[in-house]
Amino acid sequence: MKILVINCGSSTIKFQLIEMETNEVIAKGRCDQVGYDTSNIIYKNLVDKKELDEVPVKMQDHKEAMKVLLDALLDKNYGVISSLEEVYAIGHRVVHGGELFQKAELVTNKVVKDIEKLCELAPLHNPGSLMGIKAIEEIAPTMKNVVVFDTAFHQTIPDYNYIYAIDYSYYEKYKIRRYGMHGTSYMYILSRLEELLNKPKEKINAIICHIGSGASVCAIKEGMSYDTSMGFTPLEGLVMETRSGDLDPAIVTKIMKEEHLTPDQMDEILNKKSGRLGLCGIGDFRMMKQAAIDGDERAELTRKIQCNRTKKYVGSYMAELNRVDAIVFTGGVAENNACERRRVLEDMDHLGIMIDDIKNESANGKESLISTEDSIIKVFMIPTNEELEIAKQTLEVVNHAK
Amino acid sequence: MKILVINCGSSTIKFQLIEMETNEVIAKGRCDQVGYDTSNIIYKNLVDKKELDEVPVKMQDHKEAMKVLLDALLDKNYGVISSLEEVYAIGHRVVHGGELFQKAELVTNKVVKDIEKLCELAPLHNPGSLMGIKAIEEIAPTMKNVVVFDTAFHQTIPDYNYIYAIDYSYYEKYKIRRYGMHGTSYMYILSRLEELLNKPKEKINAIICHIGSGASVCAIKEGMSYDTSMGFTPLEGLVMETRSGDLDPAIVTKIMKEEHLTPDQMDEILNKKSGRLGLCGIGDFRMMKQAAIDGDERAELTRKIQCNRTKKYVGSYMAELNRVDAIVFTGGVAENNACERRRVLEDMDHLGIMIDDIKNESANGKESLISTEDSIIKVFMIPTNEELEIAKQTLEVVNHAK
Repeated sequence: MKILVINCGSSTIKFQLIEMETNEVIAKGRCDQVGYDTSNIIYKNLVDKKELDEVPVKMQDHKEAMKVLLDALLDKNYGVISSLEEVYAIGHRVVHGGELFQKAELVTNKVVKDIEKLCELAPLHNPGSLMGIKAIEEIAPTMKNVVVFDTAFHQTIPDYNYIYAIDYSYYEKYKIRRYGMHGTSYMYILSRLEELLNKPKEKINAIICHIGSGASVCAIKEGMSYDTSMGFTPLEGLVMETRSGDLDPAIVTKIMKEEHLTPDQMDEILNKKSGRLGLCGIGDFRMMKQAAIDGDERAELTRKIQCNRTKKYVGSYMAELNRVDAIVFTGGVAENNACERRRVLEDMDHLGIMIDDIKNESANGKESLISTEDSIIKVFMIPTNEELEIAKQTLEVVNHAK
Repeated sequence: MKILVINCGSSTIKFQLIEMETNEVIAKGRCDQVGYDTSNIIYKNLVDKKELDEVPVKMQDHKEAMKVLLDALLDKNYGVISSLEEVYAIGHRVVHGGELFQKAELVTNKVVKDIEKLCELAPLHNPGSLMGIKAIEEIAPTMKNVVVFDTAFHQTIPDYNYIYAIDYSYYEKYKIRRYGMHGTSYMYILSRLEELLNKPKEKINAIICHIGSGASVCAIKEGMSYDTSMGFTPLEGLVMETRSGDLDPAIVTKIMKEEHLTPDQMDEILNKKSGRLGLCGIGDFRMMKQAAIDGDERAELTRKIQCNRTKKYVGSYMAELNRVDAIVFTGGVAENNACERRRVLEDMDHLGIMIDDIKNESANGKESLISTEDSIIKVFMIPTNEELEIAKQTLEVVNHAK
């Protein structure tokens, strides 16, 4: 049984076809520059090792792109299926489910209307997902579609962690509250923890650090999200590639006044020109780290700020959870950088955390326990797999709806 | 030997005359509405228990107000000194010392010029202090004046805790960095901890929660400030009477767009109409707490948000300090509310913190150990005394300068 996972941006569609019996990806790829003259497809058949590498194809809109990617999957030469009926269902990643979605749902007219309502909260993301869903509905009207939200996992966060200390009416009028992101990643890690700790998730307290180009931390209490560092938007919290993370709010108005900026221009600066890029001029983590190693002091300061900020979030969530079974590192940066993992958790033996340097050094890229035998809190590196999690939830929703 | 402590606002001068042999306040008071027709003085002679209660006196400016308060101290009937020569020196509280002042300093022309330069960083506070210093210099040209800064204690914070993850040029151009506040209070508490822990301050790691109408937390490492929750301005960090504390920076621009606000209007909202006031309509802590007890759900939510935010800061600073000797509560709200102290530190036994409820309940208003015998980390309630700390530093600076 195969599930197709679709992740639509405004001009990009990423996809993976997953065989659910084995959890294996049998084909994956992306349509880029959709709507532009430069539109192209990258595609990999992972069974027969055949691929298309940035092949130009005309894709004027999401519907055309969706046809192109389905045709690739069905192609007699490099495809992996012979009929669309082999695809059991499609799981669509949707960034923002607001307060309307607590879990993944089968797509209905009402669900589509609700996602439309939420475009205001995620104007750069939700419209792309909607275009993808509508394209599939036109091309394959009998296909079962499921929407899986980045925010849904965090809907269990208690009010004292999601309400900001501003005029309460802003929550009522503009829905300003903490939503959080990376929920699908956290759910995947939680399912891995059930196995690694040999405990049902309802009994698991954990802190998960998802650190990639975007980054957040999540406190999980009894298998549910209790707090997370991203907030109303993905800007809050950790230092990211181009996002500032936490700031004194007075800095926002100060810079606007000094630089004569509109709110939109300021948003752009905080989201696109801050974080690692703003601090040392290098947003890409690997390049920044190399620069630091090569002696660039500002890059080294950037690393320190990033690791120390993460350390502080781990501490704050330890204070909130009155027992922590495991701390997990996941996401591209955390999965591949032993040194950053060590820096985040070093000198925390007084809190029951001890990293085994040898295990940690050899953990890059593969699921590993990286704490010492006598560390009270187990520390893991677990590569995330959001697509597999979307596929699993999609399967569950479809089967449950039957 | 007597030291006069002066705290000038733009239209207020608070003062205390302290006998340094006994650390006792012998007279204190305040000139209010300076510069307005309603100007008046409150004054208490604490030796002979005589007082002036909001007595109208014309005070057109800080110089006139300073004369009025000195006259009160010298008055034959209710005064406490017979000559200004009895005042060994005057200690002036100055809010912002920027990066120019690491400690208290004797006032010189250069010091005055440096404080003037810093008015940009504290436009509501530093000008008042300057007016007070200049008034004294005119009235009593031979008097020794010392300036004691709220920010100075935090100048030991390492760069990775004071640099924000935004374009580095904003630090260079606009001096945007973490400064912190309440430094004098933290220094006073640290001097008390030396005695209570019987350790020199160089060996003390502690977390101090100063919670009043303004509120901040400080991580002290080896007797020095290592991190603090107030940042570029006193807006960042904890939930306060009318200040929001931490926010997703994107909320600032969102509200500005929705409500069509200028940066100055937005500043006003975040500083004056947020925090407890914004959340539940009641900024005053005691009234808000009473409302919560009486069943006001929003007031109860406000209490929860405030305590939980503080708890998270304690945790984040525990992660940064690789050993914590003591956690201290101080400031009006924390000194007088056993329930809030308990809420902040409850369910933290896994981190070595155990509150003794009986000791805690009886601690309101008096210096007490409130943790259990077997709590790894000692927890204290210590009433702060910023005026005494200013007086002590003033004495030290004057004696050192001789």
